[in-house]
Amino acid sequence: MQTKVLLNVEDMPRQWYNLAADLPSPLQPPLGPGGIPIKPEMLAPVFPMNIIEQEVSTQRWIDIPQEVLEVLWKWRPSPLQRACALEKALGTPAKIFFKNESVSPPGSHKPNTAVAQAWYNKQFGIKRITTETGAGQWGSALAFACSLLGLECKVFMVRISFDQKPFRKLMMETWGAKCVASPSTETNAGREILAKHPDTPGSLGIAISEAVEAAVTDGTGSTRYSLGSVLNHVMLHQTIIGLEAKKQLAKIGIVKPDVVIACAGGGSNFAGIAFPFVNDKINGAEIDIIPVEPTSCPTMTRGPFVYDHGDAAKMTPLLPMHSLGHDFIPPPIHAGGLRYHGIAPLVSQSIIEGLVTPRAIDQIECYEAAVLFARVEGIIPAPETSHAIAAVMQEAKKAKEEGKEKVILFNFSGHGLMDLTGYDRFFQGKLTNYALPASEMGNAIKELDGLPRPKVVRTGKW
Amino acid sequence: MQTKVLLNVEDMPRQWYNLAADLPSPLQPPLGPGGIPIKPEMLAPVFPMNIIEQEVSTQRWIDIPQEVLEVLWKWRPSPLQRACALEKALGTPAKIFFKNESVSPPGSHKPNTAVAQAWYNKQFGIKRITTETGAGQWGSALAFACSLLGLECKVFMVRISFDQKPFRKLMMETWGAKCVASPSTETNAGREILAKHPDTPGSLGIAISEAVEAAVTDGTGSTRYSLGSVLNHVMLHQTIIGLEAKKQLAKIGIVKPDVVIACAGGGSNFAGIAFPFVNDKINGAEIDIIPVEPTSCPTMTRGPFVYDHGDAAKMTPLLPMHSLGHDFIPPPIHAGGLRYHGIAPLVSQSIIEGLVTPRAIDQIECYEAAVLFARVEGIIPAPETSHAIAAVMQEAKKAKEEGKEKVILFNFSGHGLMDLTGYDRFFQGKLTNYALPASEMGNAIKELDGLPRPKVVRTGKW
Repeated sequence: MQTKVLLNVEDMPRQWYNLAADLPSPLQPPLGPGGIPIKPEMLAPVFPMNIIEQEVSTQRWIDIPQEVLEVLWKWRPSPLQRACALEKALGTPAKIFFKNESVSPPGSHKPNTAVAQAWYNKQFGIKRITTETGAGQWGSALAFACSLLGLECKVFMVRISFDQKPFRKLMMETWGAKCVASPSTETNAGREILAKHPDTPGSLGIAISEAVEAAVTDGTGSTRYSLGSVLNHVMLHQTIIGLEAKKQLAKIGIVKPDVVIACAGGGSNFAGIAFPFVNDKINGAEIDIIPVEPTSCPTMTRGPFVYDHGDAAKMTPLLPMHSLGHDFIPPPIHAGGLRYHGIAPLVSQSIIEGLVTPRAIDQIECYEAAVLFARVEGIIPAPETSHAIAAVMQEAKKAKEEGKEKVILFNFSGHGLMDLTGYDRFFQGKLTNYALPASEMGNAIKELDGLPRPKVVRTGKW
Repeated sequence: MQTKVLLNVEDMPRQWYNLAADLPSPLQPPLGPGGIPIKPEMLAPVFPMNIIEQEVSTQRWIDIPQEVLEVLWKWRPSPLQRACALEKALGTPAKIFFKNESVSPPGSHKPNTAVAQAWYNKQFGIKRITTETGAGQWGSALAFACSLLGLECKVFMVRISFDQKPFRKLMMETWGAKCVASPSTETNAGREILAKHPDTPGSLGIAISEAVEAAVTDGTGSTRYSLGSVLNHVMLHQTIIGLEAKKQLAKIGIVKPDVVIACAGGGSNFAGIAFPFVNDKINGAEIDIIPVEPTSCPTMTRGPFVYDHGDAAKMTPLLPMHSLGHDFIPPPIHAGGLRYHGIAPLVSQSIIEGLVTPRAIDQIECYEAAVLFARVEGIIPAPETSHAIAAVMQEAKKAKEEGKEKVILFNFSGHGLMDLTGYDRFFQGKLTNYALPASEMGNAIKELDGLPRPKVVRTGKW
């Protein structure tokens, strides 16, 4: 029985897929102060122009530069694996396949865009990249990419994670990056917060503000900022996951999966595996496409579709997205990568169009799924990835009830070797679901009342 | 430029290679009390008979059971990668290739034998396996294998590592194994030590004693013990690494490497990549084959070839091996897997025969090599693996001086994501080499004086 489908290096996709070219309704532009659409050149102090061009592109296929491919080859094409032991454990007639993105050196899908972004910055003459990181997966991926491409990297890491997860900082330093706790004394944004709240645990919003400030105030003009999710070009770079998966499924005679599942925080690992199949769906294929979020941070399932800021300090433009409000502080679940108030505009609009159907799952159900997966399939999932696995198990059980031989494809976005404390707390019975009560939900989105609303309704044109 | 050579699942080797069939001089048997050779059946309370048969086999090729292959497929064949960026950084004409064993779910080569051993135990009707672990790589690999095959697993982990590396214990528990600090109160051996030395940090020797005792005193008769290195059957199971590498080199037209390198603690990852090439050398090929050890624990380069015990408590038979004495306590270098007083009999005899040429390298040189590798190639090496990389760099520099286009192959035995504190201490300038002074060396091997000597001299028959 074939349990793994490899792809040769020469069969790797040479182009990324851009969903913006095919969305039934046009993607809404980001808005600046006063609700005026942002012009691309206004972003030039923050991002290099070649990345800004990708951000606003509606070209369907975009070539992957040869040098980017050569770095990706270090771990790509990633294997497509069949979870036979999980199927057996669940007694399901469903065939469960997963793309194993945990095989990258930093252990997740994040380097797919980190390498591309570092390369475009380097091409543009940039010497140094700043970014923020929460739990540390994105910061370590960008540190890795900058190291391989010979760029300096500076990471502002949310203080509470900086203190709780010293290994993530050590990973970044081993790859030559500088990692400081945020808020820091290195930026105005950081100093102001520290003056008011010297003991603050920090937040992703503050860290973004610091990283952007550090990029735009660098006098040399050769520093830019980089974001690991949410934006269109990040979604684009991740589509290599789904494009590889299509080729791998075809290799074993599977025309299309019936269900595609991934967890979604900012949306990039979901977009990566799902967007090529969203394209198939627009063209008539019947596929259930499910982004999965925690019930404690139900951006997609309960957040309204609004124009909101990407950060707490409102330094970023307004983006058209499902949001719980830029001031929303998600409960301390272990899946740090899913603790974000918004979700990528491209994912948001796919939800509005009914192309993808989000689902929220409780933390404890996710850990139960992750432990079963680890014990029968052998790979310990990241806390974020456990959300995808819990949804896979729900779908596999449904297939059993219906007696259907469905093909379920999911993205195994990362391993959990750096996040084992969550498992420890699960075994000790110390985990909480933190499902968001309606009262808090109301408060969270009240602040969204005064914001503009994107003019998108479901077109049904697919 | 081809930087990675994959092998399809169907091209994976179907047999292990047994060097005992080809060693120019016959392998010496283990000795029991009174210096009498141990008979296979005397080991039956400790190991299942099917593994004992492998341990004493002189058959050249041994079939890999289909069900073992199907588990290995989860991450094998492992990629053969070319370290182009390292070559460039060193300005060497040498071509540097490595087998990337870090892609296994526990992150090292150890599961190659853990899966095989768990399968043979299960075939023999065993329900529960005990073992010891130092730094935790072996314990987590066996926990992983037992989980996949549905066996119970009990790991005695050296107390100081148990306290210093809680993540390793959490890995084992996530895979359903039980992990206790050794010495424990669960065995006579443990209780006796604790009575005398309540604050002992523990040692591998004590942990072995506890694991063996827990296996042989289990009343059900369905518990056995498992060892992750040193023994012949362990070397055998690891040869899949070198056999894959040969096929992968052949795929890109390389008939043979000029140099083969791996670190060696008990010897299994070295044997794994090297033994198929030792066979070629016996048949006339010119290949430099180099096992690398720390100068702080110079078993191969400075230890005499003697009959010595595998553990401090002298519970194991006497094995013919290079040894620093079973009471030798290696200095606290970060490469915990290389802190062992002996080295596998098959490796020892290859040294005596001049088939392999060991080398010792200082800890700091190894970390310098590891950091360069991490920064240009992107994968953070385990502290053990850094020894192989340091030797590779020595050989690459030699090739540069000689102007020779050598092919260097090494085993990237594991990643260092669970061992980042060593890097931190390196960056802070806190590391010491601990190269063993001659005076301590003398004390260490004095205890070996009364032990029998194996009757093996260099035959030169190759």
